[in-house]
Amino acid sequence: MARINEHYRKLRAGYLFPEIGRRVRAFQAAHPDAEVIRLGIGDVTLPLAPAVVEAMRRAVEEMGTPAGFRGYPPEQGEPFLVEAIREHDYRARGVEITADEIFVSDGSKQDAGNIQEIFGVDQRILVTDPVYPVYVDTNVMAGRTGPADEAGRFERILYLPATRENGFTPPPPERAADVAYLCSPNNPTGAVTTRALLERWVAWARAHDALLIFDAAYDAYVRDPALPRSIYEVPGARACALEMRSFSKRAGFTGVRCAYTVIPREVTGATASGERVPLRELWARRQATKFNGVPYVVQRAAEAVFSDEGRKQTREQVDFYLENARLLREGLGAAGFEVHGGVHAPYLWLATPAGTSSWTFFDQLLERCRVVGTPGSGFGPAGEGFVRLSAFNARARIEEAVERIRHAFGR
Amino acid sequence: MARINEHYRKLRAGYLFPEIGRRVRAFQAAHPDAEVIRLGIGDVTLPLAPAVVEAMRRAVEEMGTPAGFRGYPPEQGEPFLVEAIREHDYRARGVEITADEIFVSDGSKQDAGNIQEIFGVDQRILVTDPVYPVYVDTNVMAGRTGPADEAGRFERILYLPATRENGFTPPPPERAADVAYLCSPNNPTGAVTTRALLERWVAWARAHDALLIFDAAYDAYVRDPALPRSIYEVPGARACALEMRSFSKRAGFTGVRCAYTVIPREVTGATASGERVPLRELWARRQATKFNGVPYVVQRAAEAVFSDEGRKQTREQVDFYLENARLLREGLGAAGFEVHGGVHAPYLWLATPAGTSSWTFFDQLLERCRVVGTPGSGFGPAGEGFVRLSAFNARARIEEAVERIRHAFGR
Repeated sequence: MARINEHYRKLRAGYLFPEIGRRVRAFQAAHPDAEVIRLGIGDVTLPLAPAVVEAMRRAVEEMGTPAGFRGYPPEQGEPFLVEAIREHDYRARGVEITADEIFVSDGSKQDAGNIQEIFGVDQRILVTDPVYPVYVDTNVMAGRTGPADEAGRFERILYLPATRENGFTPPPPERAADVAYLCSPNNPTGAVTTRALLERWVAWARAHDALLIFDAAYDAYVRDPALPRSIYEVPGARACALEMRSFSKRAGFTGVRCAYTVIPREVTGATASGERVPLRELWARRQATKFNGVPYVVQRAAEAVFSDEGRKQTREQVDFYLENARLLREGLGAAGFEVHGGVHAPYLWLATPAGTSSWTFFDQLLERCRVVGTPGSGFGPAGEGFVRLSAFNARARIEEAVERIRHAFGR
Repeated sequence: MARINEHYRKLRAGYLFPEIGRRVRAFQAAHPDAEVIRLGIGDVTLPLAPAVVEAMRRAVEEMGTPAGFRGYPPEQGEPFLVEAIREHDYRARGVEITADEIFVSDGSKQDAGNIQEIFGVDQRILVTDPVYPVYVDTNVMAGRTGPADEAGRFERILYLPATRENGFTPPPPERAADVAYLCSPNNPTGAVTTRALLERWVAWARAHDALLIFDAAYDAYVRDPALPRSIYEVPGARACALEMRSFSKRAGFTGVRCAYTVIPREVTGATASGERVPLRELWARRQATKFNGVPYVVQRAAEAVFSDEGRKQTREQVDFYLENARLLREGLGAAGFEVHGGVHAPYLWLATPAGTSSWTFFDQLLERCRVVGTPGSGFGPAGEGFVRLSAFNARARIEEAVERIRHAFGR
């Protein structure tokens, strides 16, 4: 008899964004004329940069010719893209990563969700709270947790609350864990982990023989050179950390799909008998068995992000979203809201009016302002009392959103 | 302490195709002037059809404009593609599939590898032998098996040998299993399951409350209307079967990446307490949590496969490969080889000369003919004594390969 994976039933009813989608669709059905401003799901809005479009166009033409056609992509990524990543994302910042340590993929969500497969089912996971739900849900589905408590915390996961008191960047705990997920700039809070704090995390991982999974999907939004963009800027990280980067938010690739994961050769996990196995080899095996590479056209698009024109054009896109974030931050701050994030990140972490729950404020924003946010509690219990706003939208809509919220809620 | 998933260590040293790649590279390093003909990995060679190129070009242009830009794709696929699939792959053959039963993905390898996640870890898997390694290896990695025996058979997997005696299409066994993988046209043997046999499989699944995973990645190569291309042409299959299809081999998409999986609403799995849960819901949850959709440009490319021009052009591509298969089949048959498959499939299943092992014959083909095949034993113990040859290559190279093999081995 075919039996299901019952761990799925521990998950809450819907993944956060589908639930938001359902509420927004219901609102729009009831108010067909309402002009809704979407600052919920973190999806980019600017068209692809001209350098990217031109590279894709050329690659499409190549695929239509006998000489230019390409079949299965190389397993870990096209050498031209891997070299561009090494040069511009690492060497330019003083970090040396070898080609076989880079795994090109179709998204950081996929990589962040799949990476847990190479760890034992008894591993103790650490996450900050609030947290990108993929880290938690994929471990729940794999059976690494017990059921959730009433607040939504899963048994056996170690949650570190990100609070006002710790600047939404919690330090490592006293106790041990096996695998810790860190995200900086953070989704959802927009907080950035400082170099000093990242050094503490690396020291913690090395002291406990733990592994850090550093999700830097939003690294392009860091504009202060004193803030780390790669965990490998911290000495010792090559021995205990893997890193994920994405083209989604840095170059508008949410509908193009390209990202990569770095696993240094030195990073190992242990067997029950104490043997050390390079995680790079396990991940290579996982990808060779369950993945078939990123489309050639997409890899050429990603390569173009690193060209002179591509770097300039995509930086301007990020600048545009950062300016949106500034307008939201300052506008809502002036209206009396407590606002965090939005400086080196496309996300603002907005405290709800006193005593209002995240979902209640989500509904109020939708009904009174026709603005869609994301309830902070959807990212974890410590997100209660906050809403995440995304800076991905047209300038006029950002300004309109500030105006509507100020009018409805401002002092 | 970070501990690895030790189930990975049950796998053999390398996934089959990387091992072949290593041997071919070693041969080429030793014989830099040798003109090697690759009939090993099943990768297409013809350029993309003009209708597909044109659709991709238009989609790329759209992505560069404010009005045409698209961010995250819809979770289960773009409606335009889903509707084209319903119409051309199903309704045209008298089968009704609803839009929410179709899940567009970036590859059948991914779907075939990921689908096991929604089943319990205690499930008993059934495969035919030889078998596409992904079905087995992904279940090994998930812990559903014991170690492999000397022949390479994993404990707890039920293997059904595909032999000359059963025409390489084994009937269902007497005993029960929980999840059975069927592939027709078959990779690697090229055998096609008849309607009568598929009816027996559906009856078996219903009798044992088992699930059939029907991999129809090569359905476009079936040219006999009496042979089923979809399992849903068999009454009762909607209650017990899910189906996978791919654009890789029907339209040359191995480097473009698009496929889909169908899960009818009626297909359920049981919980320990006997409750029935629709598998469609579990898969939707899996995909929403770990997948972010297929690039817009790629979905437009796939849609174009269904246009009048696209259907005509991609059919001509398949015709070309089928003619290659005929030339291989008849040429090697005339040279005295025992040849199977290659009629409604792009693969030939070539018996090695008496007493020669698959890997030995692989090496002989490489060294004496400079032709790359795939050792049948790499697909499972019952593949010993065979080599798979792929019909994906230029006409002149297919003819040259036949000539070289005939010269080296012919009677």
